[in-house]
Amino acid sequence: MNAEIIAVGSEMLTPSRVDTNSLYLTAELNTLGVEVVAKAVVGDDRDRLAEMVRQAAARSPIVILTGGLGPTEDDVTREAVALALDRRLVFQPAILSAIEERFRRLGRKMAEINRRQAFLIEGAEALANDRGTAPGQWVEDAGRYLMLLPGPPGELKPMFERFCQPRLARCVPPRLIRTLQLRIAGMGESDVDQLIAPIYRKYSNPVTTILAKAGDIEVHFRAHAETEPEALALLEAVAAPIEALLGDRIYSRDGAPLETVVGRLLRDRRATLAVAESCTGGLLAERITSVPGASDYFAGGFVTYSRRTKIDLLGVSEALLARHGAVSEPVAQAMASGARFRAGANYALAVTGVAGPSTGGESVPPGTVFLAIADHLSCEVVRRQFPGDRGRVRQFAAQTALDLLRRRLLSAS
Amino acid sequence: MNAEIIAVGSEMLTPSRVDTNSLYLTAELNTLGVEVVAKAVVGDDRDRLAEMVRQAAARSPIVILTGGLGPTEDDVTREAVALALDRRLVFQPAILSAIEERFRRLGRKMAEINRRQAFLIEGAEALANDRGTAPGQWVEDAGRYLMLLPGPPGELKPMFERFCQPRLARCVPPRLIRTLQLRIAGMGESDVDQLIAPIYRKYSNPVTTILAKAGDIEVHFRAHAETEPEALALLEAVAAPIEALLGDRIYSRDGAPLETVVGRLLRDRRATLAVAESCTGGLLAERITSVPGASDYFAGGFVTYSRRTKIDLLGVSEALLARHGAVSEPVAQAMASGARFRAGANYALAVTGVAGPSTGGESVPPGTVFLAIADHLSCEVVRRQFPGDRGRVRQFAAQTALDLLRRRLLSAS
Repeated sequence: MNAEIIAVGSEMLTPSRVDTNSLYLTAELNTLGVEVVAKAVVGDDRDRLAEMVRQAAARSPIVILTGGLGPTEDDVTREAVALALDRRLVFQPAILSAIEERFRRLGRKMAEINRRQAFLIEGAEALANDRGTAPGQWVEDAGRYLMLLPGPPGELKPMFERFCQPRLARCVPPRLIRTLQLRIAGMGESDVDQLIAPIYRKYSNPVTTILAKAGDIEVHFRAHAETEPEALALLEAVAAPIEALLGDRIYSRDGAPLETVVGRLLRDRRATLAVAESCTGGLLAERITSVPGASDYFAGGFVTYSRRTKIDLLGVSEALLARHGAVSEPVAQAMASGARFRAGANYALAVTGVAGPSTGGESVPPGTVFLAIADHLSCEVVRRQFPGDRGRVRQFAAQTALDLLRRRLLSAS
Repeated sequence: MNAEIIAVGSEMLTPSRVDTNSLYLTAELNTLGVEVVAKAVVGDDRDRLAEMVRQAAARSPIVILTGGLGPTEDDVTREAVALALDRRLVFQPAILSAIEERFRRLGRKMAEINRRQAFLIEGAEALANDRGTAPGQWVEDAGRYLMLLPGPPGELKPMFERFCQPRLARCVPPRLIRTLQLRIAGMGESDVDQLIAPIYRKYSNPVTTILAKAGDIEVHFRAHAETEPEALALLEAVAAPIEALLGDRIYSRDGAPLETVVGRLLRDRRATLAVAESCTGGLLAERITSVPGASDYFAGGFVTYSRRTKIDLLGVSEALLARHGAVSEPVAQAMASGARFRAGANYALAVTGVAGPSTGGESVPPGTVFLAIADHLSCEVVRRQFPGDRGRVRQFAAQTALDLLRRRLLSAS
């Protein structure tokens, strides 16, 4: 079964924006055995959008629209789809009440224009939005399925999962797709590929895809089959030798990010963690605390961006800073020990480096980062030279610090 | 004049690929005064592509196709456009010679299938490709302009610059596009829109677009004109009354994010900042230090995720925590004062709240956040109730804290 996706919004037609919702939706549709055969981005023009909806629906039985459900004049998706299907828009008092209730809960007054969001295409089903005011809509029309979903990914994803996924699963002839995902730290994309390509290239089913972020590689396998055991056997055939090759560089087999994996290891060991950050400036703490329940194991963090705060907050000695510079192995070590002691934690990570673009007076080139991990017995420091701009160096550094901790926790078990 | 861009290739319809050629082309077209009104991605299906080319050309006088010019069976762009325009494909011996010559130069033998690349749409002009084998094509058809460009960006960009840009500049009436961007903190999208819609709705030029993130609203104006002064006057006509209405809720007129604006204000005043974060877990420090040169004004940060670290690192009193709870006005105040004193900074921000999903034993609902700002004279605390999930609450809280500081710095000047 074929699908098309239409992203609505003039801002999506500027040189700086890409439509990422369609990537998520494509992955979800593929899992259901649905093929995406075309995607489009259209501005906030009702008539043009209506025409493109009509054309897409004539070609493909599934059409998903994202965005343009807001309360303002330039949110035209509701009207355009109604026009394309030659249906009316009907005011729904129940939807308005839900929107008003949402505003009340947040202690705010609903603006009059939010009434626009309470209009439903005749015969459509409203899809509740827990994260925003715009309800989605599910419309069936002569054997075709149209979905109107909100643009913000945080609203779109739960709505698709809760309402569209199960409805589509009933409409689409069953074909099984099973996936497996390996996440790898501490290797570059081309190194991973060079190592594993001789294996995965032998198989066209499953399909293998490699995705790379700074210091974080994902290998995805997608198998098609008629039965579950058959799909799992296909995945196993390619994944098992790859897992054997990559060994403990694989940190996750269920999609969990590194901060979640590290959190689980800390919780299992009833251990606590403190961090001291210079060049990552809070990114490491931010990643650790993005996991719900992190307070069980995260004691606290220090962002010591100046020499002064390294001395005052972490107890790094002035002489050490003067002798070795702030970006050095002894200072990384002193930061980790200081953070561990002052936050009363079992483990501490410290990061000090030059994220760039300038060196800030340090004698090392931009991209140089020292990472330290301390526990009750020892403190280990590694030096790394990361590529890329300020943002990427910070990402690499945070990822590498988390992986240091993961390896230490694994070896301590 | 309007344009549409169609990217061709089934690989562009997978969950891991985005079409970035269209971003480059959009920037180039905008510079020529051409508006991109729709973009599409289509797989390697000749008939579907032909239909979409026909529909795009019926709507827009400029249609640019990227990709699908390779030598293999699944490279269908030439055939599809010929079909859409009802023209023949004509074999061009001169193109074949050029391709053969290219292979010779690289010391390789041309494969037989490369002959496919020597076919030109009847009446089209071939565009030489210095970086690859696939020539581009420029087709004029009843006042419309169609361009077939190769998919690899390294081939597409020089070809567009050398051949398409000057041809389009001759075809397109000279028109200029200028933009203006206002960024607003502390208001919801619908509140902003309700306030300013009566103004911007009076103008179709400039076009106004509103974008919303958690606690961060962007209003974009795009004006078309024949001359620079005319474009600026058009922007001024709508932006000036809107700026007057929104007043100091506008934090930026040049696209700068709030952390950059706050950084400039701190630097101007030679002031330093410390932060103490509970529920934002490092996000606030991370945003502040994402700006190059932040070490000039950022003294340091504390991520005090537990009661223990609030006491040990910030000097919050145990009695205060016991009496009011960690998520309370007095604790926010004590955190800000403690951070300011211990980091030796002029200003301090503190954030304590419940990001969710659970309340972690606090007596306030998820989304409740107290934000404090301290300077040498006073400490102000505000309480907010933010909507959304853990991630959004954290974003709202960090944005609101930065805006508190911005307002304090402005009033202190």
